[in-house]
Amino acid sequence: MAEAIAPGRLAAFSDGVIAIAATLLILEVKAPPAGEEVWPALRHEWPALAAYAVSFLVIGIAWIHHHNMFHQVRRVDRGLLFLNLGMLATLAYLPLPTATLGNHLTGHDAVPAAVFYSASVMVSAVWFTLLWNHLCARPYLLHPAAREFAREARRRSLLGPVCYLLAALLAFVSPVGSLILNAAIILYFIAGRRSPASRVQRPIPASAAGSEEEDTARDGEPSPDAR
Amino acid sequence: MAEAIAPGRLAAFSDGVIAIAATLLILEVKAPPAGEEVWPALRHEWPALAAYAVSFLVIGIAWIHHHNMFHQVRRVDRGLLFLNLGMLATLAYLPLPTATLGNHLTGHDAVPAAVFYSASVMVSAVWFTLLWNHLCARPYLLHPAAREFAREARRRSLLGPVCYLLAALLAFVSPVGSLILNAAIILYFIAGRRSPASRVQRPIPASAAGSEEEDTARDGEPSPDAR
Amino acid sequence: MAEAIAPGRLAAFSDGVIAIAATLLILEVKAPPAGEEVWPALRHEWPALAAYAVSFLVIGIAWIHHHNMFHQVRRVDRGLLFLNLGMLATLAYLPLPTATLGNHLTGHDAVPAAVFYSASVMVSAVWFTLLWNHLCARPYLLHPAAREFAREARRRSLLGPVCYLLAALLAFVSPVGSLILNAAIILYFIAGRRSPASRVQRPIPASAAGSEEEDTARDGEPSPDAR
Amino acid sequence: MAEAIAPGRLAAFSDGVIAIAATLLILEVKAPPAGEEVWPALRHEWPALAAYAVSFLVIGIAWIHHHNMFHQVRRVDRGLLFLNLGMLATLAYLPLPTATLGNHLTGHDAVPAAVFYSASVMVSAVWFTLLWNHLCARPYLLHPAAREFAREARRRSLLGPVCYLLAALLAFVSPVGSLILNAAIILYFIAGRRSPASRVQRPIPASAAGSEEEDTARDGEPSPDAR
Repeated sequence: MAEAIAPGRLAAFSDGVIAIAATLLILEVKAPPAGEEVWPALRHEWPALAAYAVSFLVIGIAWIHHHNMFHQVRRVDRGLLFLNLGMLATLAYLPLPTATLGNHLTGHDAVPAAVFYSASVMVSAVWFTLLWNHLCARPYLLHPAAREFAREARRRSLLGPVCYLLAALLAFVSPVGSLILNAAIILYFIAGRRSPASRVQRPIPASAAGSEEEDTARDGEPSPDAR
Repeated sequence: MAEAIAPGRLAAFSDGVIAIAATLLILEVKAPPAGEEVWPALRHEWPALAAYAVSFLVIGIAWIHHHNMFHQVRRVDRGLLFLNLGMLATLAYLPLPTATLGNHLTGHDAVPAAVFYSASVMVSAVWFTLLWNHLCARPYLLHPAAREFAREARRRSLLGPVCYLLAALLAFVSPVGSLILNAAIILYFIAGRRSPASRVQRPIPASAAGSEEEDTARDGEPSPDAR
Repeated sequence: MAEAIAPGRLAAFSDGVIAIAATLLILEVKAPPAGEEVWPALRHEWPALAAYAVSFLVIGIAWIHHHNMFHQVRRVDRGLLFLNLGMLATLAYLPLPTATLGNHLTGHDAVPAAVFYSASVMVSAVWFTLLWNHLCARPYLLHPAAREFAREARRRSLLGPVCYLLAALLAFVSPVGSLILNAAIILYFIAGRRSPASRVQRPIPASAAGSEEEDTARDGEPSPDAR
Repeated sequence: MAEAIAPGRLAAFSDGVIAIAATLLILEVKAPPAGEEVWPALRHEWPALAAYAVSFLVIGIAWIHHHNMFHQVRRVDRGLLFLNLGMLATLAYLPLPTATLGNHLTGHDAVPAAVFYSASVMVSAVWFTLLWNHLCARPYLLHPAAREFAREARRRSLLGPVCYLLAALLAFVSPVGSLILNAAIILYFIAGRRSPASRVQRPIPASAAGSEEEDTARDGEPSPDAR
């Protein structure tokens, strides 16, 4: 049945799941209940707030990566559909390790909470490697101009799981240090040059750019709606 | 009033509801509270995590099926609108039986929880049979090229309810076995050839493909935005 | 600032809020906790499930009505923006009266819960009258062909608040009867001929239909994406 | 990696996060539990309901502002992506200060709750100043016609943080007064003339308007889908 799924539609559905997963994270941070002092209760929630911020960025970077990947895809097969569902299920499940970390980062059981958190983030990153791998092995799923870049993206997509694995290992020594390392990895992916797919840009054919505004078309980045 | 609803808009609204239902599921899995050991608490949540994974796939397959169905629809009448709302209400309610199963799968009342779960999933699948039935009886709602395929899809759409009914019956004997059977049904629908609508592909007219990139148009799968 | 808001974008944002409000409703139905008997606990939740079903349909019909309204709108001014935000805030708040009704329908305080519920639904319907009123008083916000129909829609939009007011009054006598009346009103709006805007169809100009498939264009109902 | 993100796609993802954040707010208002009197329990929730209404409008105005900003953007760079993620994380976190204010507005610790609330809203407004600043310093990210307007929008975007800062200061004297001031600021932004970007309208080039309906094109406000 997968053949009938248009890449644009699958990307839009995935966007929805990813946006909701990011926004649900805050529900795991408990507001100071009536009767308690506000500032001490909020200070007590700092691990939950820090976990919220890092997980929001993790999901944000996953959205960017996912957007870049589906920009290259011209056909969806069953394997791609299944891997994409697995990736979405993993992202949508991140509120659980995030809440676990928030509940335990300053407690006596911080090490397993931080290991669980970093390992969960690592799994979400592994799906991208599996997705790129699937695409590289089936080049007919990609836009022709994207094929050589996809191989490069697959290589680079290994960087995420490796970094998050290091964060998971660091968690055995320092749970707080592990959370900081996770944040640093994300900021590096957003700001840095080595993020997967950063160079993978499919040239826009003249026919697709025809209905675009002049200067947008020159940038080679029309909105997906316009194609 | 239904005549004024464009199929594309109804599909987009349905996508939103389905994406949210899938993502809300994780809220039913309880994070280990502060003070408890993390690993034992997470192990204790395995039924909730397993129910999360299966329900996420159930909703994912429903999204695929829904997408394939609305790809064939060119007009929405009141009956279609009502049946679609019923289907959405059933999918959006799945977090309830999912949480019930997660709470009870390893307890003394696992049988009714597993029966309730499989029966709920079965009801969500029955809506698709009702929807295809409605469409087959009113062929003017379908794109002309889709009409013969819709009859085939209606026949195939009976497979889902029958399989989930078997899972509900199995739940009386083995609640865990029932959950595994549900998972197997889903994986079969994703990976297999017999899923409803797998062959139902509406040919894309030349006029619609005109603004598409060459190689995408040849695949007969333009994104919905492009049409 | 409102002049810069495109009607299609405002409608899409509204769709998102409405879809989320509908899907959040289920979170107010409590799953049977571990240790309790499943069937008795579910039976005990029947008021919450009934309130869920009715509210889902209330929000569904509001989506249909909203979609039909924005199909007629060609410009958004500040008043329309403000009224639309008020309507969205009311729809997004419906989980609160829904949960209240679910908690109290079979208890000793069922009357105020049912009055609160029906009055809340009534308020959500009043916004539509206010919106049509705003549009009729500013015809330049509407597509030219929609102006005479908008006056008709304004007249018909009074039917919803009046019906829901009757349901609120009935709640003083029979809370369960009030919920049933609410359900009947919704089903009447979906199935019946008198719903607001049922005849309000803006003709599609030839230029907009040009990129459409032949038979879709003849139906006068191209998807919003295609225009 | 940011270069590959189309402005329209980033705006759509942001819309999703913003719509969800607005709709999640109601989950922080507690429905009267079974066994309690309904009206007294609802009266007791008035601070939560008032905080809900103000936060819904805060997020609504942020959506409008965000929409207006991205209407001017033709390219997304890493800085814009990062600032936008920060803004989304702040908006998605507003349910926390909203619930805090709702829990404490009538209690003994109302001052810190109201300060926390107004300061959080202020931070969400500061992101817009940072975003406009980023855009003004990199005019190649903007549509050419939007550049002089962006400088004006940057100047005006200082108004929001200043107003919300005043509300935060007022909270030290009167928490309820602070909430009322926040509401007044929002209503002023919606109804008034001084909101940022109110004059910032990018002229629509003839090529983009070509597929539009005649009278819509004359308004210079085609839907984003149509471009």
